[in-house]
Amino acid sequence: MRPTDMHIDVLISEVGPRDGLQNCQSIMPTAAKKQWLTAQFACGFKEIEVGSFVPAKILPQLADTAEVVAHARTLNGLQTAVLVPNLRGAQNALAAGVDKITVPLSVSETHSLKNVRRTHEQMCEEIRQIRLAIDALPAAERPHLEGSLSTVFGCTLEGQIPDAQILSIAESLMQAGCDEVGLSDTTGYADPAAVKHLITAVRSVVGDDNLTGIHLHNTRGLGLANALAAFEAGLTTFDSSLGGLGGCPFAPGASGNIVTEDLVFMFESMGVRTGIDLERLLDVRKILQQHLPDEPLYGFTPDAGLPKGFVPASTNDAAA
Amino acid sequence: MRPTDMHIDVLISEVGPRDGLQNCQSIMPTAAKKQWLTAQFACGFKEIEVGSFVPAKILPQLADTAEVVAHARTLNGLQTAVLVPNLRGAQNALAAGVDKITVPLSVSETHSLKNVRRTHEQMCEEIRQIRLAIDALPAAERPHLEGSLSTVFGCTLEGQIPDAQILSIAESLMQAGCDEVGLSDTTGYADPAAVKHLITAVRSVVGDDNLTGIHLHNTRGLGLANALAAFEAGLTTFDSSLGGLGGCPFAPGASGNIVTEDLVFMFESMGVRTGIDLERLLDVRKILQQHLPDEPLYGFTPDAGLPKGFVPASTNDAAA
Repeated sequence: MRPTDMHIDVLISEVGPRDGLQNCQSIMPTAAKKQWLTAQFACGFKEIEVGSFVPAKILPQLADTAEVVAHARTLNGLQTAVLVPNLRGAQNALAAGVDKITVPLSVSETHSLKNVRRTHEQMCEEIRQIRLAIDALPAAERPHLEGSLSTVFGCTLEGQIPDAQILSIAESLMQAGCDEVGLSDTTGYADPAAVKHLITAVRSVVGDDNLTGIHLHNTRGLGLANALAAFEAGLTTFDSSLGGLGGCPFAPGASGNIVTEDLVFMFESMGVRTGIDLERLLDVRKILQQHLPDEPLYGFTPDAGLPKGFVPASTNDAAA
Repeated sequence: MRPTDMHIDVLISEVGPRDGLQNCQSIMPTAAKKQWLTAQFACGFKEIEVGSFVPAKILPQLADTAEVVAHARTLNGLQTAVLVPNLRGAQNALAAGVDKITVPLSVSETHSLKNVRRTHEQMCEEIRQIRLAIDALPAAERPHLEGSLSTVFGCTLEGQIPDAQILSIAESLMQAGCDEVGLSDTTGYADPAAVKHLITAVRSVVGDDNLTGIHLHNTRGLGLANALAAFEAGLTTFDSSLGGLGGCPFAPGASGNIVTEDLVFMFESMGVRTGIDLERLLDVRKILQQHLPDEPLYGFTPDAGLPKGFVPASTNDAAA
């Protein structure tokens, strides 16, 4: 059986094909993307963010998202996720038949205006329209809608955002029709105490079941410590990028996603089941090396190898 | 006042001059070491492991340890620490007038025999002799004696070491005359759950006050997550190396100490006071760059810079 058919304790949501590739100079051929998704699905991944519906002139790296979604839908049991910035993107996502749509809303209004030229109120209106478009579909075809609170741990333009503003926006996102909200450390400002604090605060307004995921960057090296803090505070969905793709920690402004391989190693060595076959995953890096030879890959575990006698938590289930 | 004169919540013990330099190809000139110690002391460090008393033919990088100790003793208020492998080294350390002696004992007997050609019983006998040598000094001149449980999270030769063996050795170290024991992840095998588990287990036999410190490596990228786990489990002393000196995570067998700058950033951003002036510390890297131009330096915070509006915890005390 695929490891993903086992019971898992945390869901690792691979965002390399979206957040990784959108920060790469190179454009990955569509066939290579399909090969990557197939290989990573075979390792046990249950959710992959496969692209973003944005104009091709803005992100040519993701111009083939509809075709990539079509391929992802052939992988039986995979939750196919995409990011969309607006209603137009969501309409394309619905037409493609995705399982999950994430809409980012920057809690820093300065950042929101600069990034998507929309105020918070305009973004909430966009989400209300997306909700209507989703609800126009038959119930079985409606994707899950997540509002992602970006720059929630601080903004390079505004610095720290007041808690009251964050909580108000979280409530507005739920009222606008999101199924859940997520936290996103867009700027790499998070620390373990802030992670725990914000999880408790946001859950107090949206409810525990409506905040389960976090998107962390490793900009200042705290990515895994922040993931540990989020896990301890009760979150169960963690975004990460294979090989830390697209995030050069030494280039200002780069994304710096946490590295999937190291994140999986942390959880599996802690006894927390991801359902992912880590040894097999280390092999998937070769696809990136082959098709993106100019992009640096990151990660400590791939270089150090697994410890002698290492028994991943997910294998405990296999014998049962 | 020096930041170190404030109240601190955790003690960052800089081990770069010992564990960093001993893993470097280059030999740092003695004058540069003195400059480094002075600069780092001025940032607020209360403890620095300045060298190791071992034969110069084994570690020529540390052949000047006695002279470095003499300089460190001129820095008023600094705890001058050294590592010694045996009685002979301890005698040299006592003659030099150090404040703290750490003796590593590998809980893997295979590793111990290979590394220092001594069984556990022989190492305990060595520590009994060191205790006698210390007690022969006037009470005010006696350094603190720590027995460091190395390979405690697993060994590249033996794999996992049984808890019962670890606890038995921890007890033996205390009976042999150590003032305290420490945990050392020599191989980079630790994970947050194992860190918490071993702290609880070892404290159950030596007492909470006799296990306060941990030496972590970042071999598989979990260094800061493990430090967070250790802090949550009650430890207050953390070894780290400026610029991750001497530890190339991508070279098999390299040390891979956790990076002091990132560790200080994590604690200070969490509201945990280290007493260290982080901005000033980032400048100290220049001394390493100047005198060890061929050695790679690591760390994410130095490259990304501090977040906009960042207020370190240690400044809260300054106004008091």
